[in-house]
Amino acid sequence: MTTPARRGRPRSEGADGRILQAAHALLTQRGYDRFAIDEVAARAGVAKTTLYRRWPTKDHLLVALVARIQDEVEVADTGDLRRDLTVYLGAVAHGLEGMRRVGREAAAADRSAGVVAELVAAAARHPDVGEAVRALFARRNTLPLRLLDHARERGALPPATSSEVLFDQLAGALYYRLLITGAPIGADYVEELVDQVLTQAATPHPERA
Amino acid sequence: MTTPARRGRPRSEGADGRILQAAHALLTQRGYDRFAIDEVAARAGVAKTTLYRRWPTKDHLLVALVARIQDEVEVADTGDLRRDLTVYLGAVAHGLEGMRRVGREAAAADRSAGVVAELVAAAARHPDVGEAVRALFARRNTLPLRLLDHARERGALPPATSSEVLFDQLAGALYYRLLITGAPIGADYVEELVDQVLTQAATPHPERA
Repeated sequence: MTTPARRGRPRSEGADGRILQAAHALLTQRGYDRFAIDEVAARAGVAKTTLYRRWPTKDHLLVALVARIQDEVEVADTGDLRRDLTVYLGAVAHGLEGMRRVGREAAAADRSAGVVAELVAAAARHPDVGEAVRALFARRNTLPLRLLDHARERGALPPATSSEVLFDQLAGALYYRLLITGAPIGADYVEELVDQVLTQAATPHPERA
Repeated sequence: MTTPARRGRPRSEGADGRILQAAHALLTQRGYDRFAIDEVAARAGVAKTTLYRRWPTKDHLLVALVARIQDEVEVADTGDLRRDLTVYLGAVAHGLEGMRRVGREAAAADRSAGVVAELVAAAARHPDVGEAVRALFARRNTLPLRLLDHARERGALPPATSSEVLFDQLAGALYYRLLITGAPIGADYVEELVDQVLTQAATPHPERA
C-alpha cells in the first residue's frame, strides 16, 4: 500500500508561484550573494510591493523556496521502512546537495554548505526568519515522523522507540556532515546510515520489548 | 580506568593565549556583530599586526576560540560507554548552548543558534575558514571516535558498527536541533538520545553479530 503525501503543487499558482519560480531560477543562476529581490519581481512580472508584502527580505523568500523544494519530495509509506527511509533521506540529501551548489561554479569540488548555511545564518539572525524556518521543519517533519510512528505501531520498531529521536539521528547525520564536518552525503552514505540505524533499531531489546 | 585526554591548555600561553582570552571576553560581552578584531588586539595588549598575521579575520579568530572551548571538554573512556557518551555529549550540548547565547541578552527565551550559525555561515562563505572548521572537527572528533572504537573492540557495540556513522547520529542530532528545528538540547534530551542509540546499538543483531 502506497500513500503518496504532499506531492507537487497546485496547477494554477498565481503570483506566488511565478515569484517562487523566478526566485529559484535567479538563485540557481546567481547564487545567494548576488540574488536581488527586485530582480525577482521584474522576472516574475509582479510589482515590487506585491513581493515585499509577501516576503519582506530575500531570506524570507529563501525560506519559501526551501518549503517548495521540500514539498516536492514524496514521503512514501509502503510498509518497507528501510526502503521508504532510504528513498526519502536520499531525496533530502540530494536536495541539500543541490542547494549547496546553487549559484556556485565548480561547486562540486569544494565542500561549502552554500545556501543551506545562509539559511541557517538568516534563521539565527532574524527572529521572524527563525520562526518561519522552525515552522517549516515542524510542518514538513510530520511526514517522516508519521512514517516512523506507523513502523512502531506495526512492530517494525521497538515499542519504546521515540520517532523524534530516531528522526533526529537520521536527518541530523546529514545536516551535521553538510554543515559541520563537510563529509559527503551521497547515496552510499544514506544507505549506510539507514542500514546502521535500522539494524540497531529493528532489533527488539530484551529490556524494552 | 580513566584516560583523561586533551584537557586544559598549557600554563604559559603567550600572546596567542592572551588574544584568545580577550576575544572570548569580548565576544561574550558584545556578541558576534559587534565583535571587532582591533578591540581584541587592544585588550590583549598585542600589536594589531600580530593578531592579523595569526588570524586575518574575526571568523578565523572564532574558529580558534571554538577549538579552545572544545579542547576544554574532556573525553573520558572509563569502560562505561553510556556514561562516557552522556557526559561527553552533555558537555558538547552545554558548550553549544553557551555559544548560542553569547552576547545576546535574554537569549534564553529565543531559539536562535547565535554564534554557532555565524560559524557555519563563515565556513560556507570563506574557503579557508571552511577548511579550518573541517580540520578542527576532524581533529577533535578523533577522541569520541576512539571511544566508540574501543567500545566495539570490547564487544559493547556490534562488530559491524561504524563509529563514524554512530557519532554522526549522536552529534548530528544535537546540531540538527540547535541549527534547524530549534528543539532544546538539555540534559534530558542528551540522556534520551544516548539511551535510544545505545539501546539500539548495544543489542547484537542476529544477522550482523
